Amino acid sequence: MKVRILGFGMGPQHVTPEVAEALRGCDYALAVQKGDDDSLLAVRRAVCEAHGVELVVVRDPERDRSPGLDRAGYEGAVADWYDARLTAYRDVLEERGGVAAFLVWGDPSLYDGTIRIVEELGATIDLEFDVLPGISAPQMLAARHRIVLHQVGKPVHVTTARRLRHDVTSGQNNLVVMLTSGVDLDGFEDWHIWWGANLGGVGEHLVSGRVGAVRSALVEARAKAKAEAGWVMDLFLIRAPELPLEDSDGAA
Amino acid sequence: MKVRILGFGMGPQHVTPEVAEALRGCDYALAVQKGDDDSLLAVRRAVCEAHGVELVVVRDPERDRSPGLDRAGYEGAVADWYDARLTAYRDVLEERGGVAAFLVWGDPSLYDGTIRIVEELGATIDLEFDVLPGISAPQMLAARHRIVLHQVGKPVHVTTARRLRHDVTSGQNNLVVMLTSGVDLDGFEDWHIWWGANLGGVGEHLVSGRVGAVRSALVEARAKAKAEAGWVMDLFLIRAPELPLEDSDGAA
Repeated sequence: MKVRILGFGMGPQHVTPEVAEALRGCDYALAVQKGDDDSLLAVRRAVCEAHGVELVVVRDPERDRSPGLDRAGYEGAVADWYDARLTAYRDVLEERGGVAAFLVWGDPSLYDGTIRIVEELGATIDLEFDVLPGISAPQMLAARHRIVLHQVGKPVHVTTARRLRHDVTSGQNNLVVMLTSGVDLDGFEDWHIWWGANLGGVGEHLVSGRVGAVRSALVEARAKAKAEAGWVMDLFLIRAPELPLEDSDGAA
Repeated sequence: MKVRILGFGMGPQHVTPEVAEALRGCDYALAVQKGDDDSLLAVRRAVCEAHGVELVVVRDPERDRSPGLDRAGYEGAVADWYDARLTAYRDVLEERGGVAAFLVWGDPSLYDGTIRIVEELGATIDLEFDVLPGISAPQMLAARHRIVLHQVGKPVHVTTARRLRHDVTSGQNNLVVMLTSGVDLDGFEDWHIWWGANLGGVGEHLVSGRVGAVRSALVEARAKAKAEAGWVMDLFLIRAPELPLEDSDGAA
């Protein structure tokens, strides 16, 4: 059988012609439903409906979140949950066969586990797979703020909120930060931030400026995004104060 | 007047519905023709034709490339050329007015000068502008190789070929390298590379493996890409040997 891993950006407005064509050639698309929350499924549903493909919803297995778990217990619970999810996918693929789409929010190449999951499914199911890219959140952030993610000829370091301080200590001064959960910016008061939540969807909010000046506006905007959409996915670009916002060298 | 900066990825197959809609609402699109080479214009032409928008071609001004120029002379020549290009754009915008599209190969947020150019045009022309994202080359590279650009929870450092050695010396071990001109990989023999040229277009070639093992295949593929398309645009992901290709931690 065949699996197609399809990035759909932030919604139907980002479904490229090549993804649309691939999707129309699929027998069904797979998506996970977490808990009782349907809001994250709604965008996938809209994409499938727009292209006439059935959406098969797999319920995300329960994970043991007991507060009493020690580290080994926690890791065991995560491993069990991961295996249960693989099994849930495997059951659908084995029953249905054919050509299945895995719809990926944003792009499959950044902080997304779909490629790994499909590779692991391939260990016990005879399948081939391919990947098509979608608009990613950092690109959308840059577009909304009308900026380039780096200075002329300089790098941009894409990392996670958990690693932010480590990477700054290691010398990074221009970072896109993803996988946030709340925004902890203590010590970054003099840096410049370009922040966005729920980009391209319900509850989109943008904030930019010197961290010290916009911090409370940012916290407020994040709460608003969550209230409006029922969930919040945010990310930001942050740049050290010693770097000018723009290079003076005009020749790119 | 209004300018819309529109990322179109690698061609019509990547024009998102929101970019298509924006383009259809433009009075014309602007593109630069470098020298007598029409091959880089062809994709923009195809995008415009698909959406019924006139393409206005601006000839790139000649740049003084005399070998005898000293550093000041070189910088002056670049500045003159940059100003001449701005003037060429300004002439078209002032004559035509209305809503103009600037079509950007890939995405406007990575190593692209269009936003800066439009901001500079805004200094003397009363214009507003917005930006819509497009599929970028690093995403396309990852999709073709069916990989995620980083290990689970780890960063990816996006940089230029000129800075590669500097950034590696500073501790980076997982880098996307853009703005290449030839591939100089001396000293990286034990690293793993995922390389691609002319992705999504004529002359697409892919090579991956340990640098020491695939180097000659890569040089050959690069020459083929250039022969087939008349030009070559390549990039790569390179990862240090001490990093496993995949994390053993299954939980993303």
